Amino acid sequence: MSSTAGQVIRCKAAVAWEAGKPLVIEEVEVAPPQANEVRLKILFTSLCHTDVYFWEAKGQTPLFPRIFGHEAGGIVESVGEGVTDLEPGDHVLPVFTGECKECRHCKSEESNMCDLLRINTDRGVMLNDGKTRFSINGQPIYHFVGTSTFSEYTVCHVGSVSKINPAAPLDKVCVLSCGISTGLGATLNVAKPPKGSSVAVFGLGAVGLAAAEGARIAGASRIIGVDLNSSRFEEAKKFGVNEFVNPKDHNKPVQEVIAEMTDGGVDRAVECTGSIQAMISAFECVHDGWGVAVLVGVPNKDDAFKTHPVNLLNERTLKGTFFGNYKPRTDLPSVVEKYMSKELELEKFITHSISFSEINKAFDYMLKGESIRCIIRMDA
Amino acid sequence: MSSTAGQVIRCKAAVAWEAGKPLVIEEVEVAPPQANEVRLKILFTSLCHTDVYFWEAKGQTPLFPRIFGHEAGGIVESVGEGVTDLEPGDHVLPVFTGECKECRHCKSEESNMCDLLRINTDRGVMLNDGKTRFSINGQPIYHFVGTSTFSEYTVCHVGSVSKINPAAPLDKVCVLSCGISTGLGATLNVAKPPKGSSVAVFGLGAVGLAAAEGARIAGASRIIGVDLNSSRFEEAKKFGVNEFVNPKDHNKPVQEVIAEMTDGGVDRAVECTGSIQAMISAFECVHDGWGVAVLVGVPNKDDAFKTHPVNLLNERTLKGTFFGNYKPRTDLPSVVEKYMSKELELEKFITHSISFSEINKAFDYMLKGESIRCIIRMDA
Repeated sequence: MSSTAGQVIRCKAAVAWEAGKPLVIEEVEVAPPQANEVRLKILFTSLCHTDVYFWEAKGQTPLFPRIFGHEAGGIVESVGEGVTDLEPGDHVLPVFTGECKECRHCKSEESNMCDLLRINTDRGVMLNDGKTRFSINGQPIYHFVGTSTFSEYTVCHVGSVSKINPAAPLDKVCVLSCGISTGLGATLNVAKPPKGSSVAVFGLGAVGLAAAEGARIAGASRIIGVDLNSSRFEEAKKFGVNEFVNPKDHNKPVQEVIAEMTDGGVDRAVECTGSIQAMISAFECVHDGWGVAVLVGVPNKDDAFKTHPVNLLNERTLKGTFFGNYKPRTDLPSVVEKYMSKELELEKFITHSISFSEINKAFDYMLKGESIRCIIRMDA
Repeated sequence: MSSTAGQVIRCKAAVAWEAGKPLVIEEVEVAPPQANEVRLKILFTSLCHTDVYFWEAKGQTPLFPRIFGHEAGGIVESVGEGVTDLEPGDHVLPVFTGECKECRHCKSEESNMCDLLRINTDRGVMLNDGKTRFSINGQPIYHFVGTSTFSEYTVCHVGSVSKINPAAPLDKVCVLSCGISTGLGATLNVAKPPKGSSVAVFGLGAVGLAAAEGARIAGASRIIGVDLNSSRFEEAKKFGVNEFVNPKDHNKPVQEVIAEMTDGGVDRAVECTGSIQAMISAFECVHDGWGVAVLVGVPNKDDAFKTHPVNLLNERTLKGTFFGNYKPRTDLPSVVEKYMSKELELEKFITHSISFSEINKAFDYMLKGESIRCIIRMDA
């Protein structure tokens, strides 16, 4: 039992006081975990586009003050009542979407969309009592997707925490909490390219590069990167991408360009942009008879996916995925093991490393498109 | 070797002289099979909607005079040069789409869309010489989808002929040449409902009833039939359908009705209507996390399948199928065995039986919606 168990912990957290304004490092109070909750000491966290999207609060209900952050690695500090799966000292990855292990989704072999702990970007409080565990002089500070890892200590539902191999370096595997696993799983768990096959990856950001990494691991022989920004092509080679198409370089739809390059279409396509046009192109560029397209990117509210149904009848498959179809608690430990066995290379995703006090730099790097992942060291 | 091998055979055939006009039983000349062709004696044939659609010639290039028919059972009379897989006396089902066993599709485990012999409704001639094997006093009579089974003898490419168990009664298994296998395979090969699952079948014609039969064989516990014609519901019970929805009875979209009936959606949906609205409803009525929708019906040229991409991202799968994903030569014999082992019940699909001379009655039954399948006995 740690000496802080049951006590309020005072520590540093990066608080977003209002939309789009730099985070401010504040001293916050972190209440002890309640039933089915755990309190974590965060050691490393990284910034993902989803943090930026909700920090900008364009198009969603704004909820401030809030502590963002959902890609991280940490250690269990203390556990609340009823928690039996975790104990202080366990190495863990908090995850923005949970696994209660009780609902129909958790009991299904096919789904990871837990009814209880599925991502909820509007909720800023804990499920147990509808309140926050963070406060500053009594003022509640809201949570974000059940993780709020931009804090030295945070409180999570036990179902949103994945226990991993304690030998795994948290400054590397912390990036598996969200984007990298999402892209990797989209390829390995959903698209499932056979060895020697061709795979098109739409969008060469972190998620797309992880999808390409999945194709490389699966042994795909042609990995075609598609991006509107040709400067991304050089970096993408490290992730197995060996052919490139910039739709701007062609005066016909990119699906036609890809079909011509591949004698009728690629075997698999993975869409990681969120652009509805890329989603349609990704589907229409797969080969008839066996092609599978997987949608990963989050679309706009009013988008409509539109295609001629004959494209489906000609035996193409269209699927979507959420968090790469990984169940956070059941499956994430095995992704960490893929890194430990050197099958999965994480170092190449990590382009920057900064101290917690410099956290706003991570936002700059991402907004300028300079970083893939920037690790934020909490103890520095 | 039969005594007719190498000779022109004179026999009866039902010739469609022009669009929408009753077929006329004529004496035709059937030339011997050329390289990679076989000549079949047809014993039983049945009528499928596709025959009627091209006989009506609405919206396609009309091609007349023509011999329709593509669901049949027969016996090999003689074989052309290079044919080693078949010999006179073999019991066979001719199929409207072939399997050359050489192309990328035939070599793929996933596809049955043979590059060489994929259905071609515009071609009325044989591939070998671009000519017909049927004639009347020297006037060529065109073929239909490589089968033309409304004739006592017909010539097919060897790749369009499936050799089956000679003990199988051809007057029953002849219906496996097209529609019944299409619906059955859509469920068993593509939707793959787990035992105890829920399946919605859109459209309770022959193909939809076969899809329901597939769900019954797979052990689905809830089989929900959806049709605009409630009079079909009673018949559908024989095929395992145990719940019914007529979209006309509700003032909200049928996908919402089904979601309410099933706590969020069915596990699988199979669409067998060709209506674009039914395709969209079938997709949107499957459960998030694991739902799979399979499109079978042939849409109109200008239809657009349209849905919000979030329906995909919530881990639904959308697939299409062609001939139930069966490879005609490789897989159809095993479907015949399903009937022989009494797993698959074909008798209930056969509502009528007539002699060849009455063939126009089969068109009447179908146009009035009175028949599921009408067997036409060639020797009567």
